[in-house]
Amino acid sequence: MRTLYCGELNASLIGQEVALCGWTHRRRDHGGVIFVDLRDREGIAQVVFDPGLPDVFRKAEEVRGEFVLRIVGRVRRRPPGTENPHLKTGEVEVAAQSIEVLNRAEALPFQLDEPDVNESVRLRYRYLDLRRDSMQRNILLRHRVTQTLRRFLEANGFIEIETPMLTRSTPEGARDYLVPSRIHAGHFYALPQSPQLFKQILMVAGFDRYFQIARCFRDEDFRADRQAEFTQLDIETSFMDETAITRLMEQMVRRLFKEVLDVDLPDPFPRMSYHDAVHRFGTDRPDLRVSLELVEVADLVKEAEFKVFSGPANSPSGRVAALRVPRGGELTRSQIDGYTEFVGQYGAKGLAYIKVNDAARGREGLQSPILKFLTDDAIRGILQRTGAQTNDLIFFGADQAKIVNDALGALRLKLAEDLGLRQEGWRLVWVVDFPMFEYDAELKRWQSLHHPFTAPKAEDLERVDLDPANVRARAYDLVLNGSEIGGGSVRIHRTDVQQRVFATLGLDEAEAREKFGFLLDALKFGAPPHGGIAFGLDRVVALMAGAESIRDVIAFPKTQKASCLMTEAPSTVDEAQLRELHIRLRKPAGSADAAGGDKL
Amino acid sequence: MRTLYCGELNASLIGQEVALCGWTHRRRDHGGVIFVDLRDREGIAQVVFDPGLPDVFRKAEEVRGEFVLRIVGRVRRRPPGTENPHLKTGEVEVAAQSIEVLNRAEALPFQLDEPDVNESVRLRYRYLDLRRDSMQRNILLRHRVTQTLRRFLEANGFIEIETPMLTRSTPEGARDYLVPSRIHAGHFYALPQSPQLFKQILMVAGFDRYFQIARCFRDEDFRADRQAEFTQLDIETSFMDETAITRLMEQMVRRLFKEVLDVDLPDPFPRMSYHDAVHRFGTDRPDLRVSLELVEVADLVKEAEFKVFSGPANSPSGRVAALRVPRGGELTRSQIDGYTEFVGQYGAKGLAYIKVNDAARGREGLQSPILKFLTDDAIRGILQRTGAQTNDLIFFGADQAKIVNDALGALRLKLAEDLGLRQEGWRLVWVVDFPMFEYDAELKRWQSLHHPFTAPKAEDLERVDLDPANVRARAYDLVLNGSEIGGGSVRIHRTDVQQRVFATLGLDEAEAREKFGFLLDALKFGAPPHGGIAFGLDRVVALMAGAESIRDVIAFPKTQKASCLMTEAPSTVDEAQLRELHIRLRKPAGSADAAGGDKL
Repeated sequence: MRTLYCGELNASLIGQEVALCGWTHRRRDHGGVIFVDLRDREGIAQVVFDPGLPDVFRKAEEVRGEFVLRIVGRVRRRPPGTENPHLKTGEVEVAAQSIEVLNRAEALPFQLDEPDVNESVRLRYRYLDLRRDSMQRNILLRHRVTQTLRRFLEANGFIEIETPMLTRSTPEGARDYLVPSRIHAGHFYALPQSPQLFKQILMVAGFDRYFQIARCFRDEDFRADRQAEFTQLDIETSFMDETAITRLMEQMVRRLFKEVLDVDLPDPFPRMSYHDAVHRFGTDRPDLRVSLELVEVADLVKEAEFKVFSGPANSPSGRVAALRVPRGGELTRSQIDGYTEFVGQYGAKGLAYIKVNDAARGREGLQSPILKFLTDDAIRGILQRTGAQTNDLIFFGADQAKIVNDALGALRLKLAEDLGLRQEGWRLVWVVDFPMFEYDAELKRWQSLHHPFTAPKAEDLERVDLDPANVRARAYDLVLNGSEIGGGSVRIHRTDVQQRVFATLGLDEAEAREKFGFLLDALKFGAPPHGGIAFGLDRVVALMAGAESIRDVIAFPKTQKASCLMTEAPSTVDEAQLRELHIRLRKPAGSADAAGGDKL
Repeated sequence: MRTLYCGELNASLIGQEVALCGWTHRRRDHGGVIFVDLRDREGIAQVVFDPGLPDVFRKAEEVRGEFVLRIVGRVRRRPPGTENPHLKTGEVEVAAQSIEVLNRAEALPFQLDEPDVNESVRLRYRYLDLRRDSMQRNILLRHRVTQTLRRFLEANGFIEIETPMLTRSTPEGARDYLVPSRIHAGHFYALPQSPQLFKQILMVAGFDRYFQIARCFRDEDFRADRQAEFTQLDIETSFMDETAITRLMEQMVRRLFKEVLDVDLPDPFPRMSYHDAVHRFGTDRPDLRVSLELVEVADLVKEAEFKVFSGPANSPSGRVAALRVPRGGELTRSQIDGYTEFVGQYGAKGLAYIKVNDAARGREGLQSPILKFLTDDAIRGILQRTGAQTNDLIFFGADQAKIVNDALGALRLKLAEDLGLRQEGWRLVWVVDFPMFEYDAELKRWQSLHHPFTAPKAEDLERVDLDPANVRARAYDLVLNGSEIGGGSVRIHRTDVQQRVFATLGLDEAEAREKFGFLLDALKFGAPPHGGIAFGLDRVVALMAGAESIRDVIAFPKTQKASCLMTEAPSTVDEAQLRELHIRLRKPAGSADAAGGDKL
């Protein structure tokens, strides 16, 4: 129906006849002539209708915005002075010889170039929203990202293998989406939270290198920028240790950024231990575009009269840390109050600070309500360790370590944003040496920080049963600009080790068998050493696209309440369908609104 | 951990030190030396342990089948006379200098090279079954198929876009898998039967060319070789008609067969109307490797005294057809009885036949219980139309047309198989000109033969409301060796046409809105002409692999009762999980066995 895309029009075609198909982006009448900007996936072409062809002209007069047209015409140079340098096709136009209205369009609920359209409206009319230039670019970028990743993996001997969507519920980790079985009354499938067990099974089966761009499901409350269904690039390899795996994955990420964004990333990526990340940045997802760091000062204030400091400084689970803000001396009282409120969200009960009016004058050059509680030695130590200079400000966190880390970690990013202290660019870091277990004080048991199939470091193996707190995992997370984009580990490949880990997690043999029996069986029959990683594809693409939400890189996303506003899923179903599935509703079905307004 | 795959070993490496990792395929002790065949994804390498290195030799003595080993050694030529020409690596061996047992293996429940292992056992221990050479090849083939298809589509401007898995139930077509919503009490998602509506929406959104390798779900009874979840290559394009779409898809299939199997397919593929396919082969999925054809003889027997023939011959819904079997004269009475029983499965009440002992002698040369009922003219006509020759046999079907088509269509294939009349090779055919609607006598309403979004032929548009039986659809199926591997159509892109089709299907405006409102809306805002196709990927790969079942090209398939024997999905779940989902069971959960034995 067409000879080329609108966006492919260029000066080399001048004099040729072309056929174009597309949408009426804009129609203007000017000097007795009609101009139609015809739009398709690749761009916009200007089509000119001359009254000299009255039949064609009359049809063009009926054209409205978003009408779908087929145009045949001759390419010509635009008259001097009317070129559009902002448009790829801006040197030329098409003099229409014929026009066919392939479809009409009603007036749109919003204009495609309208900024700040309400997102609910965008999602309801997603077919129109996706016509917008930014969404077209995002979805195309996503395509190029997956294409580049696949090519890299294929070139490196990885085989794409599909794993099941209807699988078994394993009540570990997040909440499962369940699917009632019609054939097996009272039984349910679960949608996979990840293909973790299947990819390990594929290694036991000898496929050596596996990948999949896999849909995963978590039925959680979506406060953050999460989706009920999301996509991960899932990878597993055999006979490679963490060094080899992370090196190969780095190559992949470098290739991705080079091919898609023409950005050169460093080789190798920096590495940081979990311990360092938490101590220096308050988080295991440090954003290295921000150079501000947390500094340990507990030892300096152990003896302070100020209980707010000395309490946590003397508690094994406490922390006292300082955060220097360059030129923070210019912050007003009300700005500081604002930050105090901000850290309150993370459980901090206050936000002590010292203003450095003159670094050369010691105590005399400082200004702070807490100054009187601190010894000269402590003050000297604090100034020295933070490297504070005249006109800086030092914030303090003193509380349970987790609260200090969360509060100062978040404050660090907020300050960088507010004060323009964040550098541009792409900062990647591997976070390694994670603890294997963390203690859940509520449930009174140890839990896996990653998942229960992660291998402990060989030198920590003996501690698995005796001293779980000090076992480090062979795990690695890849962090980009403060977002975790990938996480993985070397897995346990020996039955005895897996059983010891299960035991530490409080799973006795019967429970372990019930939940993961097939994995334990598989490990018995010659499982190779193996490990892998999973990348959050939605997140990676959103970062690369500069999108604010992963919803902007998913063609048909759901809201925070896991609704699709376009199809109105989920919906009520017939009683007959439920009967076939051997289930009934607990209470009469409410309307979709029963769950409250639908937030994005 | 290794320098290369076992299967990559070759004579160019002689003298070099290599490190190999893999599974102990076989261990033999011979002449005081231990031989281990070490296997990985790429092949098998022979490793030799010499008693001259006693530490290494002692460890090798402990090795059992499927132990996972790492070997370092030097590549050398095998002694003359001991080469193995059946093995890629058969010229060389590795003289082991060290051995590391990476993992041990218990005795396997079956041997990897054991033929005819019970499929239930294979599926339960899928990680072992997948180690078998044939399964490794099938899964690798599948990878190469998807890779080749993707590359072709990408090179042709198709964009891969993911569509949702948690979507809306549309009670058309097959039964949906439902997913209860936790947030929206009493509401359910459905797993997609296909991305049909989403891909049409993507065309309305202007993406122009879309593809996806998409998981689809149908909760049906799986008598045939079907799976609860299956994979389709899903494609949609804008501004292309059926000629352009099928031509492009042919190119893709030709490329696929050339690249993966080195097979040259014809250009173009033959086309056949639905009418011709059914009349000549009794089915719309003709296997053209078999040249036998059904021949119409109703007009010849309209006047016959034989009611079995004259009844259907005079009924508008009846059919009388003949099927000539070359050299079928050699069939015994009991073989013919067998075929009579065979067609009985398709509803045929008998299977009349004529043996042609001497074609030159007319009636005298024939042998048949029905001969006496037929006039000389009828006999002459039958012999002429079927082209029967001496020693042939002619079978007859006379009944409702559907029964005749099903019975003789199946008999045709069975005879070809039994008598070796099926040619080798790959025979593709496009079946076109499908009827748009078929009448469901039970429900007393018209139904779509494809789906309700298929466009009628322009010249049949006026018949949509007045004469649905004679509306042809702009649909096309691709048939390979008697299996439908792809099916698609040009879609309706105008609201008025879509509404008329819904009306013919008995959907009033309110029902249509309720079910497909978003599609009807989308068509209003400038939908382009569009169409597409979906290929059954499991089926395509199974045919290319020569696999008997699609289960053999799916890494983790389910049984005919939709169970996964490895993970034991579906399973029972906690009462608390059900409560969160606002559902309860209709009766106490039975055991998995409640549904009866698990057939493959």
